[in-house]
Amino acid sequence: MRKIEHIGIAVKDLEKSNTLFAKLLGKEHYKTEEVEGEKVAASFFQVGETKLELLQATDENSPIGIYLEKRSEGIHHIAFDVEDIASEVERLKGEGFEILNETPKLGADNKLVVFLHPRSTNGVLIELCQEIS
Amino acid sequence: MRKIEHIGIAVKDLEKSNTLFAKLLGKEHYKTEEVEGEKVAASFFQVGETKLELLQATDENSPIGIYLEKRSEGIHHIAFDVEDIASEVERLKGEGFEILNETPKLGADNKLVVFLHPRSTNGVLIELCQEIS
Repeated sequence: MRKIEHIGIAVKDLEKSNTLFAKLLGKEHYKTEEVEGEKVAASFFQVGETKLELLQATDENSPIGIYLEKRSEGIHHIAFDVEDIASEVERLKGEGFEILNETPKLGADNKLVVFLHPRSTNGVLIELCQEIS
Repeated sequence: MRKIEHIGIAVKDLEKSNTLFAKLLGKEHYKTEEVEGEKVAASFFQVGETKLELLQATDENSPIGIYLEKRSEGIHHIAFDVEDIASEVERLKGEGFEILNETPKLGADNKLVVFLHPRSTNGVLIELCQEIS
């Protein structure tokens, strides 16, 4: 866990939220990306060493679509940058955390990602991510 | 908005959550503090340039107590480090954000803090904080 790589924020309308967060942060997002596997469109703002990742569902049955339906807009997850995702998964399993996908999957921004179930982490959805070299 | 100063996480039992987050992060919290004005007990973990701040209500009618009652444990707010909180508040008011306390108040960890209402920020409770020099 070297740093907080990003904070994921669920939004209903990416274009409107891009305008809102640009006003909040005093700068524009620097890229957008569609993540096919997760069925989301994402935009990225850099703040210090961390990104804010705005996430809009491209399918209402995707994880973000279901979250928006249940909980409305807001902070969705915290992602930690890890050097070796496989060994972190092993370590966290050993500590009793519930891993949602033991095999890392392709996330946004050229990352391998694994999620921990919030019921094992104080209600916080945690993502681990490792840059694909 | 120079960096993400901390992420605030609402917890029911600070001691249990300290143990949980120590396992998650692979390191212990480095201090605890009671913030009289906010009626919370807080503990702090450092991850890169950002802190995770675990927050337990010391009074059930405090903001964190009410949040736990309504929403249960989880991510409560994102705090941005600012150089000059008064000028940031003026800038954000001008951009149409709703400021919860225009006069900065004393927060945890020797900071002056101002909150923005989540209804003006995509459902995200935002804190601005300036180190007291």
